[in-house]
Amino acid sequence: MSISLRTLALAPLLAASLVAAPAAADTLVDNVQGMSIDRDGRITRFTGIWIDDDGRVKQLLQRKDKKPRTDFGVDGKGAVVIPGLIDSHLHVMGIGFAALTLDLSDTTSLAEAQAKIRAYAAQYPDRKWIVGRGWNQETWNLGRFPTAAELDAAESGRPVLLTRVDGHAVWANGAALRAAGVTAQTADPAGGRIERLAGSRAPAGVLVDNAAELVQRAVPAPRPDDYDLALAKAQEMLLARGITAAADMGTSIQDWQSFRRAGDGKWLRMRIMSYAGGVEAMELIAGPGPTPWLYDDKLAMVGVKLFLDGALGSRGAWLKAPYADDPRNTGLPLTTTTQLRNLMSRAALDKFQVAIHAIGDAANADALFAIEELAATYKGDRRWRIEHAQIVAPGDIPRFGANGVIASMQPVHQISDRVMAEARLGPGRLTGAYAWRSLSAAGAPLAFGSDAPVEAPDPFAGLAAAISRTGPDGQPFGGWMPGEIVPRETALAAYTAGGAYASFGETRFGQLKPGLRADFVMVDRDPMLATPADLRQTRVLQTWVGGERVFNAGAPADSPPAAPSR
Amino acid sequence: MSISLRTLALAPLLAASLVAAPAAADTLVDNVQGMSIDRDGRITRFTGIWIDDDGRVKQLLQRKDKKPRTDFGVDGKGAVVIPGLIDSHLHVMGIGFAALTLDLSDTTSLAEAQAKIRAYAAQYPDRKWIVGRGWNQETWNLGRFPTAAELDAAESGRPVLLTRVDGHAVWANGAALRAAGVTAQTADPAGGRIERLAGSRAPAGVLVDNAAELVQRAVPAPRPDDYDLALAKAQEMLLARGITAAADMGTSIQDWQSFRRAGDGKWLRMRIMSYAGGVEAMELIAGPGPTPWLYDDKLAMVGVKLFLDGALGSRGAWLKAPYADDPRNTGLPLTTTTQLRNLMSRAALDKFQVAIHAIGDAANADALFAIEELAATYKGDRRWRIEHAQIVAPGDIPRFGANGVIASMQPVHQISDRVMAEARLGPGRLTGAYAWRSLSAAGAPLAFGSDAPVEAPDPFAGLAAAISRTGPDGQPFGGWMPGEIVPRETALAAYTAGGAYASFGETRFGQLKPGLRADFVMVDRDPMLATPADLRQTRVLQTWVGGERVFNAGAPADSPPAAPSR
Repeated sequence: MSISLRTLALAPLLAASLVAAPAAADTLVDNVQGMSIDRDGRITRFTGIWIDDDGRVKQLLQRKDKKPRTDFGVDGKGAVVIPGLIDSHLHVMGIGFAALTLDLSDTTSLAEAQAKIRAYAAQYPDRKWIVGRGWNQETWNLGRFPTAAELDAAESGRPVLLTRVDGHAVWANGAALRAAGVTAQTADPAGGRIERLAGSRAPAGVLVDNAAELVQRAVPAPRPDDYDLALAKAQEMLLARGITAAADMGTSIQDWQSFRRAGDGKWLRMRIMSYAGGVEAMELIAGPGPTPWLYDDKLAMVGVKLFLDGALGSRGAWLKAPYADDPRNTGLPLTTTTQLRNLMSRAALDKFQVAIHAIGDAANADALFAIEELAATYKGDRRWRIEHAQIVAPGDIPRFGANGVIASMQPVHQISDRVMAEARLGPGRLTGAYAWRSLSAAGAPLAFGSDAPVEAPDPFAGLAAAISRTGPDGQPFGGWMPGEIVPRETALAAYTAGGAYASFGETRFGQLKPGLRADFVMVDRDPMLATPADLRQTRVLQTWVGGERVFNAGAPADSPPAAPSR
Repeated sequence: MSISLRTLALAPLLAASLVAAPAAADTLVDNVQGMSIDRDGRITRFTGIWIDDDGRVKQLLQRKDKKPRTDFGVDGKGAVVIPGLIDSHLHVMGIGFAALTLDLSDTTSLAEAQAKIRAYAAQYPDRKWIVGRGWNQETWNLGRFPTAAELDAAESGRPVLLTRVDGHAVWANGAALRAAGVTAQTADPAGGRIERLAGSRAPAGVLVDNAAELVQRAVPAPRPDDYDLALAKAQEMLLARGITAAADMGTSIQDWQSFRRAGDGKWLRMRIMSYAGGVEAMELIAGPGPTPWLYDDKLAMVGVKLFLDGALGSRGAWLKAPYADDPRNTGLPLTTTTQLRNLMSRAALDKFQVAIHAIGDAANADALFAIEELAATYKGDRRWRIEHAQIVAPGDIPRFGANGVIASMQPVHQISDRVMAEARLGPGRLTGAYAWRSLSAAGAPLAFGSDAPVEAPDPFAGLAAAISRTGPDGQPFGGWMPGEIVPRETALAAYTAGGAYASFGETRFGQLKPGLRADFVMVDRDPMLATPADLRQTRVLQTWVGGERVFNAGAPADSPPAAPSR
């Protein structure tokens, strides 16, 4: 697309937009069943979108409206159009690297995993390390962690390091443990645990939470080219699922430099709201305050992600009472009370948004205390976020509303974690688990996401989970703790306008309305009408970001998210 | 300035430029005595510049030409216009930080320095460390390095750390040595030396070359705000001296992030050609290859700066034979032969330009050998640079021409170093010292600069030095080794078109001719006619970068290089 001379003849009218961002021609996308939705779930219907030269919505059209003459026209052929989906918690580079590395998430037994590792090692004889992720001893029905010896049985010549599905533990083979110098003499680091062989100090092969770093640091770091490939791959996957914007949780300087290369090189096709991985990265990347919105609102560092605890699966989540299936363990906080507040202050002082990872009920309670304390000092529109907010004591739920704390939650986690969560917590403590509706009712703005690559970055699976609390198998009938099901409107808003609000983007994108960026998805069914099972089968036909078509099922996109050619 | 409607009426003609960078209106700068110059020193004269909407030269006008109608007109009132000056070797942040910290470069005795330190300490009672630079025991006629005790006499309560004028040694007080843990037990690091008290191992107070780092690392790191202030200050100073573009030698990630904040925040007013401070920084900043030219050609990382030796003043320069005034010392290389070639390979493989700091004749010979070896593998237009090329064995001079090695030299160094260089080298080894004309005659493309903040970033002082080899005092009569004087045309070209070529910028800026960025300076005298003494007195009236006036003596610039307001 390029600016047409006809458009320039309308110069006086369009002068401002031309100067601002003359990326595309003005465009009419017509003959669609369109809907937009605001943060409160109010739906607007339309049949056409008139898009400005600068990629913003100029007007939503109804069938009766006179069609404007535009440079570029697209016949939607009756497809359903919804606002671009926003994933409010994922890991962009993690998605890309995971897609490019060994994936064990579909294995159902240790033996199957071993076979897959063996095949991957044979496929990539030149890789110095075999790295991968996605294993879960629970789905293998192993009843225990796997061992280094079991990994050596698949590959013993080269180091192998495989991250657990939840990212909170790693499984190393003998060569990896040797390369990392982890031995019987190695002590558990603070906030981490080296699994030991029974009756011995010898490392068993799995390293939990902060102990994972002992081996991870021996893995050769990826090069900038690897980052760029991963970013291109992640964009391709996300756009194909209708995700036009995502909050990247835990951006490193290397991640950020790749985001910028994509922006500078015109191959950044989606929006990334970046949360630095800690305050050091925040200061290095963004400097004295949040960055401006760059590349036509495609990239900004708005805040920082802080870790308060681990995950439920690996029993790293910090609970108020011991694990039901591990009575001497309550999990552990990864920072002290004072450290957390100091980190939050450093961020808030410079007007960065603070997003706190909190899974267990003790972590959520402490995060809320910290926010309550800090909010007294750092006033104004701060939009404190709690990431996951998975297990919240019922008495703590109203505290979200009091400070407008955003609950950034991942509906699919409820589906994946259900059996495990019941085991970890026992029946008595599930009232505030994955409590979407209660949190929303308490006044917590909701922002939904996937935590990809922990889960697949599939917003339609997320929507189906949110409105049913049943899995792809339809189980459990009627939904798990069905009182926490949210209305379709709430779910879709949490995946669109709510996500934009959660990252201070709502004046730029998140809804389809005049003045906002024209980010939308054409799909083959109406998410307000489809059954949960049907919703999961949604086909994305086209994805548009800022008035440009960046994914076109079965056809090349006009602006494909290609990797840079070198 | 904003796009006028009249201009838009010419839309078909201007469509391309509008799309590219619609920053300014089209402008006529008229009634000037203008000149441009190409790399070979050929001069073009003109009386007006017609500048495009995108800040590029559209046409150079002669008095007889019909004046175009433009949106914006400036009467040059007969001023001399020359191309924007390019400083091919300086340290942007160093300039800014130096301007904001204690400056001892004008002190002529130890006592005067002590008084100035005392006054500065009183002025800034809140600073935890007193840091500064610019001392030179030679200009103090001290005949030795100063001591920690002498610094304690000025300020003993807080740590004080002062960098020598050449950047190759530091002077610390007792508190600074204690804070850094430097004691009699501390060994000299590789490539560095801790000066010791006579008859003792106790540190005397001065630490040379790599030993400086022992104390420097104890200084609290500057924050992003400090970088931004320093960058704003440096721009202000450089633009006021007519410098529109500069090669930043040794960019760190923190420097770069500040450059980007300036670009993103629209307060980057000059061009910065960045050379990373080592290959790690290069990879982190630029990634798999040089960055594109960003912000309308105002910023690019084109290459990497590698250090091969130290400086002559601190006897760190690597010589083929011992120092005349230190017969057991030949200086030292900072990398081994193999290390240097490995670093060069890593850069060249990814198409980064390589700039090697080489001061002594041994360093220059080794740099040339390395380039000769590498050039056989990394073919094409590589533009290998040697920074300083201060002392070159006469037999090595032709080797510059053979590989088109750019000699990036700083004429004022010859003036400042003359007496010291004579002492260090003795009379027999000065033939290839600051050998501008011989290097140029041998076919080395010349690029001139200041090495600021080591010297003042004053291109007119540099031009005067280049065409006279006399100091501000007119000494020595007829010039020091006058055979190395270069013609005015050569000197001006090395400060303009030669500088652009030396950083791969010549298709974008460096001359005033149609299609290149309109970077120019209005001055009060003609550098082709003024005496060297007059040339030093040149007043800069206005400085323009990309068609925008960014410095206007005695009046606010249209686009002042202000710091961001927060």
